[in-house]
Amino acid sequence: MADQRYSQRGVSASKEDVHAAIARLDKGLFPNAFCKILPDMMGHDAEWCTLIHADGAGTKSSLAYTYWKETGDLSVWAGIAQDAIVMNLDDLLCVGATQDFLLSSTIGRNKHQVPGEVIKALIEGSQAFCDRMAEWGIRIHFGGGETADVGDLVRTVIVDSTMAVRMRRREVISNDRIQAGDVVVGLASFGQARYEDTYNGGMGSNGLTSARHDVFHHDLASRYPESFDPETKKSLVYCGPHALTDKIQIPHYGEMTIGQLVLSPTRTYAPVLVPVLEAWGDRIHGLVHCSGGAQTKVKGFISKLRVVKDNLFPTQPLFEVIHQASGTAWEEMYKVFNMGHRMEIYTDATTAELVMAEAESMGVEARIVGYVEEAPRAEVLLKTPYGEFKYV
Amino acid sequence: MADQRYSQRGVSASKEDVHAAIARLDKGLFPNAFCKILPDMMGHDAEWCTLIHADGAGTKSSLAYTYWKETGDLSVWAGIAQDAIVMNLDDLLCVGATQDFLLSSTIGRNKHQVPGEVIKALIEGSQAFCDRMAEWGIRIHFGGGETADVGDLVRTVIVDSTMAVRMRRREVISNDRIQAGDVVVGLASFGQARYEDTYNGGMGSNGLTSARHDVFHHDLASRYPESFDPETKKSLVYCGPHALTDKIQIPHYGEMTIGQLVLSPTRTYAPVLVPVLEAWGDRIHGLVHCSGGAQTKVKGFISKLRVVKDNLFPTQPLFEVIHQASGTAWEEMYKVFNMGHRMEIYTDATTAELVMAEAESMGVEARIVGYVEEAPRAEVLLKTPYGEFKYV
Repeated sequence: MADQRYSQRGVSASKEDVHAAIARLDKGLFPNAFCKILPDMMGHDAEWCTLIHADGAGTKSSLAYTYWKETGDLSVWAGIAQDAIVMNLDDLLCVGATQDFLLSSTIGRNKHQVPGEVIKALIEGSQAFCDRMAEWGIRIHFGGGETADVGDLVRTVIVDSTMAVRMRRREVISNDRIQAGDVVVGLASFGQARYEDTYNGGMGSNGLTSARHDVFHHDLASRYPESFDPETKKSLVYCGPHALTDKIQIPHYGEMTIGQLVLSPTRTYAPVLVPVLEAWGDRIHGLVHCSGGAQTKVKGFISKLRVVKDNLFPTQPLFEVIHQASGTAWEEMYKVFNMGHRMEIYTDATTAELVMAEAESMGVEARIVGYVEEAPRAEVLLKTPYGEFKYV
Repeated sequence: MADQRYSQRGVSASKEDVHAAIARLDKGLFPNAFCKILPDMMGHDAEWCTLIHADGAGTKSSLAYTYWKETGDLSVWAGIAQDAIVMNLDDLLCVGATQDFLLSSTIGRNKHQVPGEVIKALIEGSQAFCDRMAEWGIRIHFGGGETADVGDLVRTVIVDSTMAVRMRRREVISNDRIQAGDVVVGLASFGQARYEDTYNGGMGSNGLTSARHDVFHHDLASRYPESFDPETKKSLVYCGPHALTDKIQIPHYGEMTIGQLVLSPTRTYAPVLVPVLEAWGDRIHGLVHCSGGAQTKVKGFISKLRVVKDNLFPTQPLFEVIHQASGTAWEEMYKVFNMGHRMEIYTDATTAELVMAEAESMGVEARIVGYVEEAPRAEVLLKTPYGEFKYV
């Protein structure tokens, strides 16, 4: 039933047809790694390799658009710029890349709806994020990008980024060393890291088509018909209880709007993971960015192993709001939303302590959320307050 | 009046607000070069530099969509894949980059309209183009990419690419050496190069919003409402005389449909320019890809010089069709469409002969289209069969 809701909204949780489309492409040097890794095309050094990687803010930009129209608040666009960058940066962290990321952005906009001040906020937001990361020792070089006026294709604005990076092959984390006996460290997606200005609800840039329509009220549909696909069944369009500007109280942080909560920019884990990789990279067996597939994401990188997560973070306000608004089954919630941690580290128990201390020093909560054991096939088992869910 | 037509269709010929948005960004090592050039972030060698560059097929994919719906011909998507790649590749040729281009693609699709077979055709088309180029000695490494289901943002499908490359600084063509006395070699955008399978009408990936709406008949509007922006004034939507499948006779090549003619994939000049740059790169003063701005594009790269083009290629069938259908003034046509050559080389008369011989050997027509002279400011003067047009 959930699958049907997704597909009626034009979203596939599992992207079967995309996987079929790329099945015949070369898989690169480390076929099991989180990103495709090419030989060192940039330096022709057999000890090095290169990557080029693309991702974007997805339909989060449609939510930003409605929020900006509703409130006039241009600052949401810096968040979208960050979303598009971090979806790449944090994927690349998962293969062990740590420095000198080349960044390009691609913006497609509808000029009837999206004026220059939004483009300016997006581009300046990208630069500001790179500057912020530089303060924490992460070097991202913004090489420019393209802004195209494509109103015949794009209803509002689409924001994508691409990153290229070069690294030593011996530093690659290929996820091949994930093994029985490993513990799984989860890094919180919520809270306020030392490198963040405000509370972050924990939203990444996945599941936004569901979250937007399930959380927010149908009156957005008539006010902003340009913010959704007119082919989607009316009963699935903005069928939630909330206005964008409804207030919610976040314990220990204070009040924010539900729009801001869902728009929380995708947190990067770079300031935590770069020092970790530099110090103990050889002791990290695997890194998984819980993006599409969320808490089940690791399943694609293991075989004959079961990842048991029996100590997940408590459900945070953002995910409570989505669950209550949508009535989505918990089993499904864990497959679509990160539910509290968007990055997991597979390592031994000793290294796990070091990783968690590093995270805490950056203001990012961390905990051992589970462990790895042998199994007849690849499995993820979640032991949650709402029951045990097995994904095979 | 033409400007008003563009802006009512949500397209800016000159992108003022985008230029304003990027005004404060760093311009790179060679501020006058065709693409932004960064220090060698990939190898940290002071004699090298790196680039990352983004562009896409623009609204040409909307035309491909209607053509595919109308005819079932999936092969148009390989053309769109090529468009998105060549718009990057040929920009990068303009700074003198010749080898080892890292490629990533970004596809945003509406799953209600665009099934997996189209994604497959796009991705396989990208790989096929790289394979084709490899046969001609051009190394493009396809690092993968992202396909996102974003129907709330995208009406049909948007296809973008990003390329990264590393090169020696001393081989950079910065356009600073364009000088009085240079001749301008134009490389034909039309015909059939040795590395092409069929006749190419000469379309790049610019001006498609105008060309599509001005050339094709209004009945597309009711059949494919998803192929254009509903906010565009009805009188400007598909207001041309032609069906996609109307036939046109191309002298010396035979019959094709007008849809195919306008969909002609953006020709790359890599098989011509890579050997030219490798052999005589130090004698090339400037390279200009006549993309947005078309025959006036060079104006952004010169000062106190006038580029006089008095020997342009004869107007080809594609541009005749667009002119006749749209009634666009010729002065405007040269600003929006390449009108016969999409690449120009600024060099001395002796080198020009070598370049032209190389082009002819690849089956690409070439001619000296004009020359450079001193002037009080940057100017382009076109002497055409339709009059003299000055752009300042």
